[in-house]
Amino acid sequence: MRILYHLPLHGGSRRVRVALREKGLDAELQQERVWERREGFLRLNPSGEIPVLVEPDGTVIPEAEVITEYLEEVYPQESLLGHDPVDRAEVRRLALWFDAKFHREVTANLVDEKLLKRFMRLGQPNSQAIRAGHANIRHHLDYIGWLCDRRSWLAGTFFSYADIAAAAQLSCVDYLGDVPWESAPGAKDWYARVKSRPSMGGILADRIPGLPPPAHYADPDF
Amino acid sequence: MRILYHLPLHGGSRRVRVALREKGLDAELQQERVWERREGFLRLNPSGEIPVLVEPDGTVIPEAEVITEYLEEVYPQESLLGHDPVDRAEVRRLALWFDAKFHREVTANLVDEKLLKRFMRLGQPNSQAIRAGHANIRHHLDYIGWLCDRRSWLAGTFFSYADIAAAAQLSCVDYLGDVPWESAPGAKDWYARVKSRPSMGGILADRIPGLPPPAHYADPDF
Repeated sequence: MRILYHLPLHGGSRRVRVALREKGLDAELQQERVWERREGFLRLNPSGEIPVLVEPDGTVIPEAEVITEYLEEVYPQESLLGHDPVDRAEVRRLALWFDAKFHREVTANLVDEKLLKRFMRLGQPNSQAIRAGHANIRHHLDYIGWLCDRRSWLAGTFFSYADIAAAAQLSCVDYLGDVPWESAPGAKDWYARVKSRPSMGGILADRIPGLPPPAHYADPDF
Repeated sequence: MRILYHLPLHGGSRRVRVALREKGLDAELQQERVWERREGFLRLNPSGEIPVLVEPDGTVIPEAEVITEYLEEVYPQESLLGHDPVDRAEVRRLALWFDAKFHREVTANLVDEKLLKRFMRLGQPNSQAIRAGHANIRHHLDYIGWLCDRRSWLAGTFFSYADIAAAAQLSCVDYLGDVPWESAPGAKDWYARVKSRPSMGGILADRIPGLPPPAHYADPDF
């Protein structure tokens, strides 16, 4: 059986889970509390980061970007990168935008401060970081709206890793109720279309004990 | 003519310059002072990051990871990723290791503190960051040595983006004289082999006005 080491509100892990479902591939999910730096896990991925995919034959593929490129090469059905090199570059540019820039400017300031710090017992959330996260997310939602005015999906005419990376990050922030959807109708319309895809079912069913998501969280008609 | 927007002591820019040379592709280099947030440049890459490649036909490809994947697809001669999907995953894992982890733990603490802060007039280097950079680099040099005990190049039997990403980051730190080569003979031997490649000539010829590199910097027999 294929195994994915992951954490529920982690953007990179969610990106891989949605990609696996888009490609019709099953995986057993194993939560990995990375802050415990478990030795067996560090042997799988010396960087200590999730996600890590272990294929049924034992092949180990670590890191979200690496796993999604690997899935595209080994399971090319339902391409999530496109076929033209320039299209593929645009998909990769936007996937990197959400994985790196959105994560640094938004997810790290909101999800890591409010949630990860609690698990890692690193003290109170930094209120300045939280204010920055709330300010920054508006620019990213505007950018999603601007892209969707010009294209049917974020990177062009097809659903791709760009949409998946954006939805993976946004869904973590949305779990905390921190996405100002009402002020971003273009992004909201795009996210409603993403949420209605069956591949999103797994991540939208996750629940953190003691921390329920807002009522609209898993609802495509929000 | 192909144009590459770059900065001289920037790991991602150096990674693309070496890759272009390995593939026998010429490019005109244009320095981009990203901290000035020039409007024409933000139109090329809304994230504001270097490097950005503009192909002779006007196609714009931003970000080091995206550019190197694009080069591999459009100019497959002299493959720098390999052909087997598992080999390619290992190349990408290690390229990401040096781009992200080494950069965060070493380059940002040394090059960004000592040099970028000066250009951006952000004040004095943070001595705690510099101490962290000096401590962290030893673990990365040990990891390079460990890999080279088992393989001819970092990711396996062939010279790849893993070697290029590592050399791109390390060469920036080495320009400042901050690599403790004498305590890392395995990494030093590997880096001597990398430096002897003609593709490294361009980046090793860079000079920052008023800041000469150490005598061994460009010498493969150091």
